[in-house]
Amino acid sequence: MFKHEKQLLQEVRVERPNPTYAAMLTEQLGGPDGEMKAAMQYMAQSFRIKDPEIKDLFMDIASEELGHMEMVATTINLLNGHDIDTGAVMAGHIESQVLTGLNPLIANGSGYLWTAAYVNVTGDLAADILSNIAAEQRAKVVYEYLHRQIADRHVRQTIDFLLNREEAHNTLFREAFNKISGTGSTRDWGVDENARLYFDLSTPGKYFDLKNPQPPQFQPPDPGEATGQTQQNRILTTEHDIPQH
Amino acid sequence: MFKHEKQLLQEVRVERPNPTYAAMLTEQLGGPDGEMKAAMQYMAQSFRIKDPEIKDLFMDIASEELGHMEMVATTINLLNGHDIDTGAVMAGHIESQVLTGLNPLIANGSGYLWTAAYVNVTGDLAADILSNIAAEQRAKVVYEYLHRQIADRHVRQTIDFLLNREEAHNTLFREAFNKISGTGSTRDWGVDENARLYFDLSTPGKYFDLKNPQPPQFQPPDPGEATGQTQQNRILTTEHDIPQH
Amino acid sequence: MFKHEKQLLQEVRVERPNPTYAAMLTEQLGGPDGEMKAAMQYMAQSFRIKDPEIKDLFMDIASEELGHMEMVATTINLLNGHDIDTGAVMAGHIESQVLTGLNPLIANGSGYLWTAAYVNVTGDLAADILSNIAAEQRAKVVYEYLHRQIADRHVRQTIDFLLNREEAHNTLFREAFNKISGTGSTRDWGVDENARLYFDLSTPGKYFDLKNPQPPQFQPPDPGEATGQTQQNRILTTEHDIPQH
Amino acid sequence: MFKHEKQLLQEVRVERPNPTYAAMLTEQLGGPDGEMKAAMQYMAQSFRIKDPEIKDLFMDIASEELGHMEMVATTINLLNGHDIDTGAVMAGHIESQVLTGLNPLIANGSGYLWTAAYVNVTGDLAADILSNIAAEQRAKVVYEYLHRQIADRHVRQTIDFLLNREEAHNTLFREAFNKISGTGSTRDWGVDENARLYFDLSTPGKYFDLKNPQPPQFQPPDPGEATGQTQQNRILTTEHDIPQH
Amino acid sequence: MFKHEKQLLQEVRVERPNPTYAAMLTEQLGGPDGEMKAAMQYMAQSFRIKDPEIKDLFMDIASEELGHMEMVATTINLLNGHDIDTGAVMAGHIESQVLTGLNPLIANGSGYLWTAAYVNVTGDLAADILSNIAAEQRAKVVYEYLHRQIADRHVRQTIDFLLNREEAHNTLFREAFNKISGTGSTRDWGVDENARLYFDLSTPGKYFDLKNPQPPQFQPPDPGEATGQTQQNRILTTEHDIPQH
Amino acid sequence: MFKHEKQLLQEVRVERPNPTYAAMLTEQLGGPDGEMKAAMQYMAQSFRIKDPEIKDLFMDIASEELGHMEMVATTINLLNGHDIDTGAVMAGHIESQVLTGLNPLIANGSGYLWTAAYVNVTGDLAADILSNIAAEQRAKVVYEYLHRQIADRHVRQTIDFLLNREEAHNTLFREAFNKISGTGSTRDWGVDENARLYFDLSTPGKYFDLKNPQPPQFQPPDPGEATGQTQQNRILTTEHDIPQH
Repeated sequence: MFKHEKQLLQEVRVERPNPTYAAMLTEQLGGPDGEMKAAMQYMAQSFRIKDPEIKDLFMDIASEELGHMEMVATTINLLNGHDIDTGAVMAGHIESQVLTGLNPLIANGSGYLWTAAYVNVTGDLAADILSNIAAEQRAKVVYEYLHRQIADRHVRQTIDFLLNREEAHNTLFREAFNKISGTGSTRDWGVDENARLYFDLSTPGKYFDLKNPQPPQFQPPDPGEATGQTQQNRILTTEHDIPQH
Repeated sequence: MFKHEKQLLQEVRVERPNPTYAAMLTEQLGGPDGEMKAAMQYMAQSFRIKDPEIKDLFMDIASEELGHMEMVATTINLLNGHDIDTGAVMAGHIESQVLTGLNPLIANGSGYLWTAAYVNVTGDLAADILSNIAAEQRAKVVYEYLHRQIADRHVRQTIDFLLNREEAHNTLFREAFNKISGTGSTRDWGVDENARLYFDLSTPGKYFDLKNPQPPQFQPPDPGEATGQTQQNRILTTEHDIPQH
Repeated sequence: MFKHEKQLLQEVRVERPNPTYAAMLTEQLGGPDGEMKAAMQYMAQSFRIKDPEIKDLFMDIASEELGHMEMVATTINLLNGHDIDTGAVMAGHIESQVLTGLNPLIANGSGYLWTAAYVNVTGDLAADILSNIAAEQRAKVVYEYLHRQIADRHVRQTIDFLLNREEAHNTLFREAFNKISGTGSTRDWGVDENARLYFDLSTPGKYFDLKNPQPPQFQPPDPGEATGQTQQNRILTTEHDIPQH
Repeated sequence: MFKHEKQLLQEVRVERPNPTYAAMLTEQLGGPDGEMKAAMQYMAQSFRIKDPEIKDLFMDIASEELGHMEMVATTINLLNGHDIDTGAVMAGHIESQVLTGLNPLIANGSGYLWTAAYVNVTGDLAADILSNIAAEQRAKVVYEYLHRQIADRHVRQTIDFLLNREEAHNTLFREAFNKISGTGSTRDWGVDENARLYFDLSTPGKYFDLKNPQPPQFQPPDPGEATGQTQQNRILTTEHDIPQH
Repeated sequence: MFKHEKQLLQEVRVERPNPTYAAMLTEQLGGPDGEMKAAMQYMAQSFRIKDPEIKDLFMDIASEELGHMEMVATTINLLNGHDIDTGAVMAGHIESQVLTGLNPLIANGSGYLWTAAYVNVTGDLAADILSNIAAEQRAKVVYEYLHRQIADRHVRQTIDFLLNREEAHNTLFREAFNKISGTGSTRDWGVDENARLYFDLSTPGKYFDLKNPQPPQFQPPDPGEATGQTQQNRILTTEHDIPQH
Repeated sequence: MFKHEKQLLQEVRVERPNPTYAAMLTEQLGGPDGEMKAAMQYMAQSFRIKDPEIKDLFMDIASEELGHMEMVATTINLLNGHDIDTGAVMAGHIESQVLTGLNPLIANGSGYLWTAAYVNVTGDLAADILSNIAAEQRAKVVYEYLHRQIADRHVRQTIDFLLNREEAHNTLFREAFNKISGTGSTRDWGVDENARLYFDLSTPGKYFDLKNPQPPQFQPPDPGEATGQTQQNRILTTEHDIPQH
């Protein structure tokens, strides 16, 4: 059962309306790495989990993502201002202007409507948690892209909060992964010789080889390791920092 | 540039036609965890990778997945037999019978057409590789589900091969992940206090907590570890082994 | 902000597993008239509502629909049983068997994935409430169809509960509609002569005409009217009762 | 059987080309509240209607909506002018410029392709007519949004005509609803106690309550009521009139 | 402007209900090669045609396809019978049973909802007519598949009629193509050396080569040629006749 | 089996970054007439072809289209430059800026994600080859539209190459069509009187009639015919040359 509290998980503000950025931020409401996808993925996966601890974790995070969805939508709402005027939108979808009367759209930044094709569920805990770790990492990246394209102080604060929460979730999902390690699809890994072959099909050049296949397992966190990084600027702000391929 | 060799990556056979299983196997041709998705995801991600070793790895695996696609499609083709007869399909999509003249369909097992919404690309290597690790794990799980629902010896052999190749790819992607560790979106992790909070939003019950957020990092493989598992039956065959949530 | 309580809104049970009916019931999890659509439609519409009473109503119902989603999903989960076996599914999607390991799918009964194209938002309260009244009516109809195709006593009880809740929501939305009557898109109705024309384009035969266009307005409930109907069997059970066109 | 007359239902003109507005107007050709959706919804619903009067009404309106589709498409065509030049499109989809050679696209304003997910059919007359009333109300709202964003006198005239026709259809559908009142899914309303509960799930604040659930029923039009409104400006033109939530 | 005549283009009947075949036949209502796709493709293409003869042809055929849509839908309606009972559907979508109350669905045989992605429009007459010729040929093939899977005499008659109409349209589109030959995208064909190369990328084996590229042009019909074929059975009925790849 | 060679089929360059044109060119990566569609259509069709020569042709062209996909994607990559800045995109999708970190998107120019609904497969060779001829013609047209909207010399060169290759494929598919002429769905054409009727449903005006229906057949190329056209400018460059309907 879900209950709603009218107070946002964290209050949001904007310095001024910015309909173009409203369209851009819609990416995290209804895009493939957005809040609705996260909420629905964790909720859907939880439907068949037996382990009460893992199920609790999934529902805690799913509930929080529903709250993020509300924060993102409220921010979009404020950024859209009060004038229906497609001319004010320089890039991104125009449905807020012609269809929804400035109401946030459940779509990505260009108006592609949310689809459950974004949601990964396999019924195997190891696979599902790995999907969630990847999803959280992608969500962080998208918030980084959005952060560097807005100067509005309040919007940046909201993005900062959300980005850090994705890191928190990511960490928790990895803890859960280590907890279930060796069960389900991570058992009996690489026992067949085909799991040991490397097919060098892209020529010329060969860089990788493969000897001892093991199931995925995350490093247990080392309490002393995190401290040295705090002096760095964690949100990338210049082109040279773009985490390019 | 891609070249095609008429020989399959590994030859496929079937003991006998089985149109229902043909529909089921279509899941791995055009479903969210299928071969086309894998091929297109790695190929798309590779388009902006600068590091030649990582790019080579992605293209090697993408090429192999195209070859898997061909193997899966050829198996579906043989399973469909020679009679157009929807009545022979007990479950799954019927487009092979009414639309494509028994030609494999680029869809999932129930006929939902392949969509690029399945493909995850962020332009950040860490996020993209984590997406790939998760994708390979899910593909393995789906092959396990398919394996236990068919008695046909030849089809099982093909699934075995493909399942083991997903494990090989998974291992390689993790090696690549460790290689780029500490760059892109894995830098500067958890420096904000919001990355350290746990919101206990699903009540009653609290099991997890969060203290020291770290970016994901995989265990380096331990050469001695894999050996103990070989005596286990790696394809699960009874209900009790279902990797349930 | 959303919170989750582990207790279901109302407990659900099944007499026995029934994978075919599990597929059918999926219609109300991820179909066009299902619970997720309802939850997301009311939540999305609420994002720009200013009137605190109306916004409260929308969020009350949206929260409840999230709880319905959980009830429906849990019922599907129980109906799916414990065996992955596509052969046990006589009709409907097979992804529960080949993709999600019996986990409920966010799709309709045939596996068409949920899409935000189901969600109607216009930013105009009158239009949005009319959309919700129609949505609740459709949801009721689908539950009636599902009710008459299952003998399982527990499942019928769950459907009964959900069906009646849709009626309750419908009634509330109409109350809200009457409250905002005469504002937004219901103002200035039929002032242009084109609003008074009837184009008789389907020949032969003419049955309707149009004289005095008025904006929609619902009958205020008459306290004495409901009572006479209780002796009727409100869930239709025979073919002759099918609410055919 | 359908026949086409080369003459438009009402002639359309534009003062001058305006490719950006062409993209915006596409919303009403292939968007969720556009003319194609209306035509296909009423036509699809009519396929199983037995009552000849209701069936006639649905086909009359469906035919007219096909004619509206043609009017909207012709207007888009004129607005697109004669130059393929994506640079002239300041907002909205670019497929008219890169794919269709200025031919109107069956999509919404941002290029999301039309999908039958927009079409609501339940086979229950009450539910279907309520869906149509809601659809007409939404269509009116979208035309209002489009009206206030164009100064072109001829385009405004066309929008005026179409908007008023939606009002006419809305009125007719309500008349039809009252005609079938008490049948199908409107029978036996609120006989179960669950139809009388209000779940107050969004806190703090409670505004609504629910006592006597009744099926929907529209007010019969009062001939004297419409007159007082004609002096109002029925197309909203300033920000303050935006029918905001 | 479109008008509707209540009389079907040709009356349809069924010997007896057959819900499974109803699902199959839905392929030609809302599938990629079905009647709605044809109607919408020709109508959409016509929106920018200047040549009055070609435009007339497109609208004649579009109107007829709308009439076919009605015939197919009516046949599905009759095949669905009067009982909502998913158990009676052995293959194909179940939404007729759980969502639409036996009303035909705008989807393909497995319930994939119609999408404008099926519609090809380029604004170039040569390309558009070639798309139409291909579409008509595919429609014929699907009707052949459907024909051989039903024994119902009346349904076969309807399919026969529709199949022959696709041939008629195909012939007309080719006549139109020859009429516009040498204009638009068929001009200046093969003037660049790259239009003369054959890349032999699938090895081993080379069968084709390319010397003198010419734009497409159809054979003008030879009046004497058709006669010799009438004694053949034009609907293929046995496995050996399946037009396999 | 597919192999990848790191060398592009033909090298691509750009004079300077142009993010707006990058979005436009995405049409040919992931749009309905783009390279991925072509590659997947021919590959999918080939899965059931028995004739080794035709199968070889399909796979040769499918492989080449995969190589085109790579060329188009690499060009988009270069056009996107190095700055994530949605403000630099004047038209088209913004996902490259907010989601993929400038990586090419598998979508059309406005961000509509690639769907297998674009792929036509019938299992009948005649129908499939006609689909391919139409697809190549449309691809040519889209390249013409793109060509005239860019001044960048290098991009034009790439487009020129690709456009000419589509012509080469078109020619080859027609040669294949003539080879299989008279088989499959081209046999027994027009033997029924319904194949000889013309329904004049769009009034007023009648221009076409239909007497002797024949299956499609292409003109065999005449070696002397092509030469006269070389002095013409084959890429249309002014508005007056737009191959308008």
